[in-house]
Parts: sequence; C-alpha cells; structure tokens
Amino acid sequence: MADLRPVALDAFGGDHAPEAILEGAALALSQGVPVLLVGDTDRLRGRVPKGAEVVHAPEIVAMDEPATSPLRKKPNSSIRRIFELLRDGTVQAAVTCGHSGAALASAQHVLGMLPGVDRAPLCTVVPRRDGGQLVLLDLGANVDCKPQHLAQFAVLGEAYARAVLKLQQPRVGLLANGEERGKGNTQVRAAYGEIEALDLAFVGNIEPLGALRGECDVLVCDGFVGNVMLKTVEGTIEVAGHVLREELRRRPDALMGRWLLAGAFRRFRQRTTYDSVGGAILLGVDGVAVVGHGRADARAVASALRYARACADAGLVAAVRKDSTRLLTRA
Amino acid sequence: MADLRPVALDAFGGDHAPEAILEGAALALSQGVPVLLVGDTDRLRGRVPKGAEVVHAPEIVAMDEPATSPLRKKPNSSIRRIFELLRDGTVQAAVTCGHSGAALASAQHVLGMLPGVDRAPLCTVVPRRDGGQLVLLDLGANVDCKPQHLAQFAVLGEAYARAVLKLQQPRVGLLANGEERGKGNTQVRAAYGEIEALDLAFVGNIEPLGALRGECDVLVCDGFVGNVMLKTVEGTIEVAGHVLREELRRRPDALMGRWLLAGAFRRFRQRTTYDSVGGAILLGVDGVAVVGHGRADARAVASALRYARACADAGLVAAVRKDSTRLLTRA
Repeated sequence: MADLRPVALDAFGGDHAPEAILEGAALALSQGVPVLLVGDTDRLRGRVPKGAEVVHAPEIVAMDEPATSPLRKKPNSSIRRIFELLRDGTVQAAVTCGHSGAALASAQHVLGMLPGVDRAPLCTVVPRRDGGQLVLLDLGANVDCKPQHLAQFAVLGEAYARAVLKLQQPRVGLLANGEERGKGNTQVRAAYGEIEALDLAFVGNIEPLGALRGECDVLVCDGFVGNVMLKTVEGTIEVAGHVLREELRRRPDALMGRWLLAGAFRRFRQRTTYDSVGGAILLGVDGVAVVGHGRADARAVASALRYARACADAGLVAAVRKDSTRLLTRA
Repeated sequence: MADLRPVALDAFGGDHAPEAILEGAALALSQGVPVLLVGDTDRLRGRVPKGAEVVHAPEIVAMDEPATSPLRKKPNSSIRRIFELLRDGTVQAAVTCGHSGAALASAQHVLGMLPGVDRAPLCTVVPRRDGGQLVLLDLGANVDCKPQHLAQFAVLGEAYARAVLKLQQPRVGLLANGEERGKGNTQVRAAYGEIEALDLAFVGNIEPLGALRGECDVLVCDGFVGNVMLKTVEGTIEVAGHVLREELRRRPDALMGRWLLAGAFRRFRQRTTYDSVGGAILLGVDGVAVVGHGRADARAVASALRYARACADAGLVAAVRKDSTRLLTRA
C-alpha cells in the first residue's frame, strides 16, 4: 500500500528560498506528491500552496553559520525540524536545499546511523554512455576517509542500486587511477582488500572513463575525490556546450545545426545534471534524507521531492539496514 | 639562436610501437622537427624515416614489467637511453609513449631533480571555457602527497605557465571541494598555508567548474585526484558526444545537424583531448621529458615531438630551475 504521509520540505533552505521552495512545493503537489512545509509560519502566511501542510520552525540557518548550528544554537531551525518529523514518523522523507553541512550534521544527529555504518555518504547518479546509471558516492560528506569507510560506502551504494534502481546484482567498482590491482593511493589500495572481503559483486579498480562507459554500477570513492569527479562532469558539460556552440557559430550555414543542437543539449543536460534527480541522498542514516542544490529552482525542488518519495516507496532504508547489518556488523 | 639538436624518441615505447612511432617521427621531420630515434638498430633497419638519426638501445621495457626495470634489469633499454642522451646534451628533449612508470623512474633517476624539488609531477593543459588553457598537475606521478609536495607543484606549474604559455602572472589555484578557505581535506587545508606563504599569485581554493571557467591558470592537486579529474574530463567528452549523436539520431530532420555536429565535435576534441599536445610533461627534473599516451598514433607522436621542442625552445628548464631555487630552497 502506498505511503500517504507527506514529504517534509525545509521552506527556508536554499539561495532562492522561500520563493523557489514554495513554487517547487506547488509543482510537486500538482504531480501528486504530498508536501509538508517546515518553517516560520508567520513568514509563510498567505503563501502556502493549496494542499500543503505546515509545521512551525521559527529559526533559519544561514549559509555562513557553522554546520553544527542546528545542533547547538538553533534547535528550532527548519533544517533540523524536517529530520525530527522524519524520525517521529510524521513524514516519509525529508528534503532541504539549505546549508549542506548543517543538513548532514542534523540528519546524522537526529536520525542516527544504521548498524555498522560510521560515516554517512552523499550519493547521486550520473548517466553512463551505455544508457545505464552510475551510482557515485561519497560526493563530499566525508573528505577524509579510512579504508573501512570506503567499504561501508560500497555496501550502502550497492543496497541503493538494488532498492532504487532495481538492479539484481549491482557491480561495485573502486575509483582509481588505473584498473590493475595495486593501482590507487594508499587509501584505495587498502580499501581494495576490505571491499573484496565483502559479499558483493566487486569488479575492482575502475577509472572514470570506464565507469562512465558502464564498467560498474556503483563507484566508490572518498568525498573529496567524488566531489571533484561530479563537479568535473558538470563543468566539462558546461565547457563542452559552450565550445560546441562557438564552433557552430563560426559556420554561416549552421543556423539549423544550432537549433537542433540547442534541443539536443537541453535534453542531454536534463539527463546529466543532478538537477534532474533534484539532489543527492544521504545514505546510512535511518531515514530518507535528500539534500538539494543550494541554487535549486522550483523545478529542481519538485524533482527532489519526487525523488525523496521514490526512494521511500522503494523501501530504501529497510534495504540498506538489512545489508549493513548483514555485511558490516559482527554477528 | 634556435637549438639545432634533435629530440630523442623512444622507438619501442607505446601500444603501436614501432610502426606508429616511426610514422610519427616521419611526420614531425616533415614539419621541421629534428628527431633522433632510440632503439634496437637491427629491428629499425630499413624503416628509419629519411633525415632521422638513430642511436642503438637493444632492450625494451614491456608494459607488465616493474617501473624500476630500466634502472635495474635493463640499463640498455630505449626508455632509459633517451634520458641519458638528454642528460649528456646530445638532444634538447626526450619523448616516450612507453611504460609511464618506467619513464618517470628513468627520467628522475637519470636527469636528477631541480633544486628544492622532492617529487616530479606530470603536467598537461586542459582548454577552458574562456578560451584560455588550464595547467593541471600532478596527473598521476605521485598518488600520495604531503602538503609541501603540493606547494612544490604550485611553483613548478607557475614556472611552466610563464615559460611555455607566456603568461605574465599566472594565477595559481588549489583544487578543492569548495572555494572558501578551510574547504578541502586534511592534505589540502595544510597545503593552503604552504602555498600562501610562497611569492605566487595564489587565488586559493578552486573547484573544477571554476577552474574550467577560467578562475585560475594553474590548478594544483595530488596525482590521484589530478588523474581522476583529467580522465573525467576525457570520459565526459566521450559520453557527451555519444549522447548528443543519439539525441540527434532520433530526429528525422537532423541529418544536416549530425553532419555539422560531426565537424564541430572533431574540432572540439582536438582542442580538448591531450593528444593535441601529445602528452604530459614531467616537471621538476633537469631536462624536458615528455610522456605520451601509450595508445598514441602517428599524429599524437608528432604532436609530442613538437611539444617537447616547444618546451625546450621556451627555456622551460632554466625557468623552472630559477623559480625552484628562489622559492623552494633556503638561501
């Protein structure tokens, strides 16, 4: 039976909050996603989209505050309250486009970690050349990792690929600077053995090109490297689009080409930027927590809400808990 | 006065050696680059392009041998001999498309390091959105780095940008997962202070997108991260090209668009892949050492030869020596 509980949405998180957030909520509601807005009800009065529920949370965490602010100084902040509503079972998932450090700290503190998980990684999907999707994690939640953390990410990413992407036996790769065993830095070489020892379809070291071609379904790395890889994909697409448009502009007969290219590029970006999924999911915590881009517009906010509900519908947390308990805890 | 000495070329390094290497040498000779081929003269007999010199080096280092092979087991290998010819002043630069680990080990061992440099980084350029070029280093020679190594890379990359790209005051950035000071992992946060203390135009932490847009001229990172970034750029271009062609194929009216796109894409790849410069240069050693792609074809080999000569002509090593002595050694 479908879960009828709403998705909690931080109304005051993001560069364009609350306007873009409220528009995104309205869009998601029109698409059948129930939404519970969390924020200062005084400031929301008269602006709440029809059909949305509201919960009061008077404090706002600004972008220049420390990540621990919702834990210490602002216990009534909207970015913390969404996760309390999730923990208490009022909502089925929580979404914020606010201060990502504060979101990660709040989610981990409020929801708690699943068995055997020490560090919660951020995870998203990147389209592959073969039409499949590459699950990439960590994207930046943990910039300094030990080998066992990478092994935990492998388990979490694999459970995600099974539960959400519906893959039967996701192939797990370890991001490295070469495919042979023994490649990688000290951290990666040590993680190789740890991941190999787990009951996963581990395909060893994978280079970025191999991963983007489809040599694995889940690509594991630390948050510093994963952030560089994701942002390099995004940056290269931007530069490639710009350069291609310039190349076509040089040709007097290229008007038609430019027009065709514009449409193709728009669809390509939709498949590629992580606006299309609306954000990254924090794995390893006890609840579906989605962290959107700070610069999310209404469409990206609606995507994040749909994505959060899809992850909840897929039974993601139960699936991750089962695998993390089986693979990461001593019986 | 122009240096009339040839560029030494390892005739037996690369996936398509010696055929592609000899064709590349012929192409470079036709473009006015003097070439000295190094390899087993028995195997080269009757195949040497007109105008090329030849030096005998009977041993070949295979791709599955350890990187130390030319130092220990095969002192007469072509991949080592090119650097001895460079050290002895017979040639002005050396190029190999062979075993890259063996090339790095041989170059460092034979040529020696410049003052104040502990680790030699591989360096290439990536085209930026603004039409400029981004100097990226290290690309994989040093996968585990200390903060002081990143500071050395900053000095080396800056000297390269001045000498070869002719920039007056290259802006040096540190690759990180955010622009604010304090972003980055432990290594990057420590390197920030080390680079800041040097007399360079340091612009702080730079994200991949910012770097590709043109926020800095030199981007410093360890060899593991740099390898991931470079290969992600290459991989994304491949995937983007494939997806765009597929998008256009779906449209019945897109024949013209496909045709235009093919030309634009070819030119774009020429600007972007590092075949266009022919390879990476090893900085910090006492000589111009260029390491080409193992899969280099004749055109890429010729590019590498032209590139090596251009770096020598630009007085790269003298410029690097001056800066490394001034900035990295205690007087």
